[in-house]
Amino acid sequence: MSSTAGQIIKCKAAIAWEPKKPLSIEEIEVHPPKAHEVRIKITHTAVCHTDAYTLSGNDPEGIFPSILGHEGAGIVESIGESVTNVAVGDHVIPAYVPQCKECEYCKNPKTNLCQKIRISQGNGKLPDGTVRFYKDGKPISHFMGCSTFSQYTVVADISVCKVDSNAPLKSVCLLGCGISTGYGAVLNTCKVPKDSTVAVWGLGAVGLAVIMGAKIAGAKQIIGIDTNEKKFDIAKQFGATECVNPKEAGDKPFQAYLVERFNGGFDYTFECIGNVNTMRQALEAAHKGWGESCIIGVAGAGQEISTRPFQLVTGRTWKGTAFGGWKSMDSIPKLVEEYMTKKIKVDEFITHNFNKIEDLNAAFDVLHSGER
Amino acid sequence: MSSTAGQIIKCKAAIAWEPKKPLSIEEIEVHPPKAHEVRIKITHTAVCHTDAYTLSGNDPEGIFPSILGHEGAGIVESIGESVTNVAVGDHVIPAYVPQCKECEYCKNPKTNLCQKIRISQGNGKLPDGTVRFYKDGKPISHFMGCSTFSQYTVVADISVCKVDSNAPLKSVCLLGCGISTGYGAVLNTCKVPKDSTVAVWGLGAVGLAVIMGAKIAGAKQIIGIDTNEKKFDIAKQFGATECVNPKEAGDKPFQAYLVERFNGGFDYTFECIGNVNTMRQALEAAHKGWGESCIIGVAGAGQEISTRPFQLVTGRTWKGTAFGGWKSMDSIPKLVEEYMTKKIKVDEFITHNFNKIEDLNAAFDVLHSGER
Repeated sequence: MSSTAGQIIKCKAAIAWEPKKPLSIEEIEVHPPKAHEVRIKITHTAVCHTDAYTLSGNDPEGIFPSILGHEGAGIVESIGESVTNVAVGDHVIPAYVPQCKECEYCKNPKTNLCQKIRISQGNGKLPDGTVRFYKDGKPISHFMGCSTFSQYTVVADISVCKVDSNAPLKSVCLLGCGISTGYGAVLNTCKVPKDSTVAVWGLGAVGLAVIMGAKIAGAKQIIGIDTNEKKFDIAKQFGATECVNPKEAGDKPFQAYLVERFNGGFDYTFECIGNVNTMRQALEAAHKGWGESCIIGVAGAGQEISTRPFQLVTGRTWKGTAFGGWKSMDSIPKLVEEYMTKKIKVDEFITHNFNKIEDLNAAFDVLHSGER
Repeated sequence: MSSTAGQIIKCKAAIAWEPKKPLSIEEIEVHPPKAHEVRIKITHTAVCHTDAYTLSGNDPEGIFPSILGHEGAGIVESIGESVTNVAVGDHVIPAYVPQCKECEYCKNPKTNLCQKIRISQGNGKLPDGTVRFYKDGKPISHFMGCSTFSQYTVVADISVCKVDSNAPLKSVCLLGCGISTGYGAVLNTCKVPKDSTVAVWGLGAVGLAVIMGAKIAGAKQIIGIDTNEKKFDIAKQFGATECVNPKEAGDKPFQAYLVERFNGGFDYTFECIGNVNTMRQALEAAHKGWGESCIIGVAGAGQEISTRPFQLVTGRTWKGTAFGGWKSMDSIPKLVEEYMTKKIKVDEFITHNFNKIEDLNAAFDVLHSGER
């Protein structure tokens, strides 16, 4: 039992007071967990474009003030009543896609989209409809059921996965979103078979994870696509057999260029940018007859994808993935083990390290710069 | 050996001289088949919306003058050199999707879209780039590799399937397109499992065939959708458990109405109309997490489908089918056997019979009327 159990904890958090403003590092109060809730001392967090998207104000469902962050790791500080899946001191990764193991979705092997706490999570609340974060008595909303931009957070018990305590939290926090998403898109959503041809739009963390998954799956050709050629080297280190800058297509539509250059297109294509135009390119560069295209990137509010239906009638399939199709409770601990046994890379995704919560805005600056 | 083998045959055909005009029934010359070609005495043909679409002039790839029709049956009158798959006197169904068994597509189990003669077929020619139809010395184009609106036609040998000579050609001609397409969309393209929920947009021949397939697959709920309520009775006879008129939704988007009324939407949806708006409805009425939507209808030229990518990211899959995914040579004879053993319905699809080629325009009038 930690000495803080049952107490309000005062700690630092990065508050998103309003859209388009930098995060404000302030002392907040984190209330103790209620039944089926877990309070976590967050030791590490990564920053993701989804956090940046909400902060930009472009997400119509964004809630302010809130504590962002959904890709983190930490140690259980205390647990509420009836929590059985983790104990104080456990090393854990919060999951923005929970797994209750009871709902219609959890019982269906085709999906990982547990709906048990969808509404409260979407409203920035814990499942009982209230929050655990307060600043000077004012409630601050939760975010994606995680809120890892705080030294302490409270999450639902179905949103927290116990992982191997030997795994460095500094590294495995990345398994809370990007790496798992790209890797799972290949393995779970598309089940890419050996000797496939694959193309990947966007060579950020998700795109690199797709490349890693495609290589593990035994793809014979893996094409990385990005307008930033500085990313080509790392993509090749991850397994890309070739990289293409869309500028090479000149005046020709990029998908037509790819279909012509790469033998009719690809068996599998993955969009890891979140741009509806590249989503269309990825679909139309999938091979006639059997090509599958998977949307991973999150598009801006209200934006729509389009294509001629003929693209589908002639045998292409359009799908998407959230958190790579992984059922979180079952999978995150296994992903950590795959990292520990060196089946999957994690450290290689890390480009910059920051030591203080005060550095979060600097981390976003690096994210936006696209630097490695 | 028929007495006409090697000779030019004079016979009646329905010529589409130009868009938007009725077919003109005239005497034409049908030249003998060259190597790898088969001349067929067409005994029966059905009319399909694809014929009507080309005749409407809305298909930018439509070619005139031509002899339309792609859903027929007949008897082999003569064969060219090197034809080994059929013999004179065989009962046959021409296939607008050929099966060469040699190309990359034929060798891939995921697709039926043989590409061997795609270009010549699209150009209204036989594979050698010429035609066998002439009117007063003027060449008349072929259509979809079939041209069943002629008393005699010539097709590539990879476009003709020998079927059981005991099967009534009057009935099995329907297996050349609509019935096979809808039935195969369920069995091949979506592989609908037992106890699924299914919804079908459009209760014409293709939609009824989807319902038939869904029933055979063991679907537990089959919803037929049409604005023409006169079609509800036949849909129920085919296996629909319930029919819905989109007008019931009132001001609410129809997909939202369906999702609310039918427990979150359907495991599988099929669009059998060819309207990009109903294609979107069908996708968005597929169940979050695992719903699949299959486009069967052919949309007008240049029209595009759209949706928010979130629909796919949250687990819906969008696909399409051509000729129901059946590899024609392998499958059409089996479909005829399924009819002969009463596994599938065929006669029940027939609404009107006409006895003379001169009645083709009247048949189109009935098609457009939507009458049963």
